[in-house]
Amino acid sequence: MGHQIIIPKAGGNQVLKHETILCPANLPDSSVRVLTAFSGINFADIVMRLGFYQDAPPYPFVPGYELSGEVSEVGSSVTSVKVGDKVMAGTKFNGYSSELILPASQVVKIGKLSLEQAAALPVSFLTSYLVFIEEGRVRDGDKILIDCATGALGQLSFSLLKKYDLDIVGLTSSESKKKIIEENGGRAFTHEEFKDSNEKGFNIALNSIGGASIMEHYDRLAPSGKIVCIGASSLFENGNRSIFRALKVVYQMPKFNIIKLMNDCKGVMGLNVLRLFDGTDYLMDLLKKAEEFDLTPHVDKVFDATDVSAAHAYLESKQARGKVLLKW
Amino acid sequence: MGHQIIIPKAGGNQVLKHETILCPANLPDSSVRVLTAFSGINFADIVMRLGFYQDAPPYPFVPGYELSGEVSEVGSSVTSVKVGDKVMAGTKFNGYSSELILPASQVVKIGKLSLEQAAALPVSFLTSYLVFIEEGRVRDGDKILIDCATGALGQLSFSLLKKYDLDIVGLTSSESKKKIIEENGGRAFTHEEFKDSNEKGFNIALNSIGGASIMEHYDRLAPSGKIVCIGASSLFENGNRSIFRALKVVYQMPKFNIIKLMNDCKGVMGLNVLRLFDGTDYLMDLLKKAEEFDLTPHVDKVFDATDVSAAHAYLESKQARGKVLLKW
Repeated sequence: MGHQIIIPKAGGNQVLKHETILCPANLPDSSVRVLTAFSGINFADIVMRLGFYQDAPPYPFVPGYELSGEVSEVGSSVTSVKVGDKVMAGTKFNGYSSELILPASQVVKIGKLSLEQAAALPVSFLTSYLVFIEEGRVRDGDKILIDCATGALGQLSFSLLKKYDLDIVGLTSSESKKKIIEENGGRAFTHEEFKDSNEKGFNIALNSIGGASIMEHYDRLAPSGKIVCIGASSLFENGNRSIFRALKVVYQMPKFNIIKLMNDCKGVMGLNVLRLFDGTDYLMDLLKKAEEFDLTPHVDKVFDATDVSAAHAYLESKQARGKVLLKW
Repeated sequence: MGHQIIIPKAGGNQVLKHETILCPANLPDSSVRVLTAFSGINFADIVMRLGFYQDAPPYPFVPGYELSGEVSEVGSSVTSVKVGDKVMAGTKFNGYSSELILPASQVVKIGKLSLEQAAALPVSFLTSYLVFIEEGRVRDGDKILIDCATGALGQLSFSLLKKYDLDIVGLTSSESKKKIIEENGGRAFTHEEFKDSNEKGFNIALNSIGGASIMEHYDRLAPSGKIVCIGASSLFENGNRSIFRALKVVYQMPKFNIIKLMNDCKGVMGLNVLRLFDGTDYLMDLLKKAEEFDLTPHVDKVFDATDVSAAHAYLESKQARGKVLLKW
C-alpha cells in the first residue's frame, strides 16, 4: 500500500490531500519500480495548485517532477539499473508518491550524491544547465545576474558555474540571506538595493520573478546580452492566491518588439523545462551527465510527506535557502 | 578638391547626387586624413535613401559606413598609422566621400587584404561577428541558418565560421546562386524551396529579411535556439519604394510574448550595428582583430563613384553575390 498527494482543486496549500494507492503489481518490460525516499517541491507545483499554470493536467492530479529512492523491481528488458540501486528520477507529474513505476529511461543511478541531494538535483540542474550552458552559452568574463540566488536553483547555479571566471550578481529577498550569495562567491543585493544600484552590463540575466522585473533587468543588459525568462514567481507572495495579483503580473509581462531588440542589440529567451519533457530522452540524457559537474545541491528543509501543506507554505513564503523536500 | 555623394531627399536611386567639396586644411591632433580608394555600399544606405530608417540623419546627408584608402596626413598625436599606410575605416555616415578626416581610432591599418577587400570588410565582419560570436555564441555542432547567404554578409559569415564544425543552411533568391553556397560548404535552398522543406532544429538563425520571415524561421529553431534579427531587406524589392510594402513588412514584424518564448524554449535577439557606433571604441577594437580571422571578403562589383545610382540599383535588385563598392 503506497501513498500519494493530490491537488484535488485550485486553492491554498490546505487543499493538498493525502491518499493511499495500490501500486500495480505488473511491471512493463522497460520500466522500474522505485520506492521513493524524497520528493522535490518546485515553484511550478505551487503555481499549478493555485490554478495559474496552463500546462497543468485537469484536477485532481499528483504533482511532482523529481524524486530519489531505491529500485525495488526492474522490468525484464532493463539493464541500466538493478534492484537495490539508489537512483534519482525525473517525471512529468506524479512525483509526490511513495512508490512509482517509471520507464527505466527516466531513472538515473546516483554515485556520490546522498538521497536527499539526489531529490534536490533534477529540476534545478536541468533548469540551470539549460539557462546558462544551452541558452546563455556562458563563457569566461561574463557578468551574470541571478534573481533567485538563495533558492535551490540559484545555489545550484553557483555550483554549476564555479568553473567559469564570472562576475555573478545575486539577488535575494532579505538582508540576512545575502551572506549565502557571498559564501557562494557572488556579489549580493536585496531586490530593493539592486533597483537603486547602477549595476548593469549583464551578459546573461536569469529571470524567475517575471512581471515588471523582466524589463527592469533587460534594461541592464550589456550589448549582445540576453535575459532568460523561466517563470513568474511574483505570481504569488506570502502564500496569497490573488487573481488580481496574477492579472497584474501577466499584464506586466512585456511583449518584445523586434525593432526595439534590434536597436538595443539585446535578446530575450524563454525556458519551460516541462515542455522539453516530451517523450524524447533529451532531458534525461542531460541528467545522466549531472554528476560530472561535481554539483552540490543545497537542501534547506525536509518535511514529512504528511506535512506537505506546511512544505508548500514554506516555499511560498520565499524564505527557502535551498531545496524543500518531502520525506516518505 | 574632393567629391562626395549626398542623399538630398527620400526617393529612388536617381535622387543620389554628386557634389564637390573642399576638405578642411586643418587636421585635429588625433585625426588622420584618408584619400578614399573604395567605399562600401550597404542595405542600410538604401533603406535610408528610401526614407524608412529612423536613425538616418536629416536630409541632405552623405551616407556610408566603410571605406578603404591611403593615409595622406596624420595629426600631431597620432601614432597608430602613418602617411602612406593603406587602411580601412568605419564611420557613422560620410563614407561616400573621396577624402575624409577621421579620428585615428576609426582607421585600421591593413595587412594582407587588398584595398577592395578592405572596403568590403568592416560592416560585414562586425555584423557577422556580433551575430555569431557575441549574440549567437556559436559552437561546434550547431545547425545554422543564414537567410542572405550569397550576399556580402552571408559570404563573410561562411568565412568567419569556417573554423567551426557546423551544418550551415544558406538561403538565396535564385537557383543559379545556390552553387555559391555549396562552394562555401553550406547546404543551399532558394527561399521557396526552404518554405517547402522540413529543415528545422536550428541553433542560430540569422534573419536579415524581416517581416513574416521572422516567425517562419523562429518556428524552425531547436530547443534553446535563437533567431538574431538584423534588418528588414524585405522592405524593398527590385528597387521599388512602396509605402504599402513598408507598412506590410512592419506590420508583419512579430512581437514576442514572454509566455510563448518560455513555452517554446527559444529566444529572439536583435542587432543594429549602427547603434553600437556610439563614441566608444567597441566596434573599432573588434575591427582591429578582423585580420586575425583570415577572412576573405567577396567583392562582387565595383562601380565608379559617378555611377552610384546604378550601384544602388544593383544592390536593390538583390542579385549581388558579394559586396558592391564605389571606386574613387
